[in-house]
Amino acid sequence: MKYALIPVIFLLLGFNYPPGKEDIKKEIYLAEKAFEKMALEKGIAEAFYFFAAENAVIKRENDSLITGKENIRNYYEKRDLKDATVNWTPDFIDVSESGDLGYTYGKYIWKIKDKEGKIVEYKGVFHTVWKRQKDNSWKYVWD
Amino acid sequence: MKYALIPVIFLLLGFNYPPGKEDIKKEIYLAEKAFEKMALEKGIAEAFYFFAAENAVIKRENDSLITGKENIRNYYEKRDLKDATVNWTPDFIDVSESGDLGYTYGKYIWKIKDKEGKIVEYKGVFHTVWKRQKDNSWKYVWD
Repeated sequence: MKYALIPVIFLLLGFNYPPGKEDIKKEIYLAEKAFEKMALEKGIAEAFYFFAAENAVIKRENDSLITGKENIRNYYEKRDLKDATVNWTPDFIDVSESGDLGYTYGKYIWKIKDKEGKIVEYKGVFHTVWKRQKDNSWKYVWD
Repeated sequence: MKYALIPVIFLLLGFNYPPGKEDIKKEIYLAEKAFEKMALEKGIAEAFYFFAAENAVIKRENDSLITGKENIRNYYEKRDLKDATVNWTPDFIDVSESGDLGYTYGKYIWKIKDKEGKIVEYKGVFHTVWKRQKDNSWKYVWD
């Protein structure tokens, strides 16, 4: 009987119970923004490593695929991005009914210093597929 | 009582019941191949229209986004692709636990006739997000 009160307690606390699609979209939004924040604070290679699922794949120049979180970190470490920053925000998020798979897209801006120290901006569109992990965290599986 | 026999009947017929993740991955595989077949038989614009979800988005040259199935058909109709063919096969498929959202990636080959009638090949990597529709069919939401 006491377990029957759990939803009531959640509702009283201001949570939706069970979490609906909008709540899960918000989780993914927060994962995107935490990813962006880590990229700014700890560097791009570390953030792309931390937020990658074990078998994550990123598609980069000339349709090359980089597979696995170690290789993704190596890919970014080899590029000289110490002075670069990147910002992004999803314009669209959708998730599966089961709340374990979702995807986003939106705009990004890279700011990279050129050889003369001048900041050059590169704008584009990102797209990410997110998968909930066994520990309940969200990691990207495609970027 | 008679409904209790449904799983037994499915199993006797050789179906897995309820369908597991591997069955759903196979559905998406078959959708990819049906999409490819339609592109070869009815043209690229028609196939990209038919397999698009209502609010589908494709990312093309210079990170431009084309949104909505009508706009996607227009995009392909404006390009002179009557003699072009495209083949693709997914190398990887994953789906959500609820079996309503999945994504693929793999290699494609476009064959396009140049001005002198010579066939030129363009190879690359595709990535598609598929979403099950209300009528149970699979349509792409991102390509």
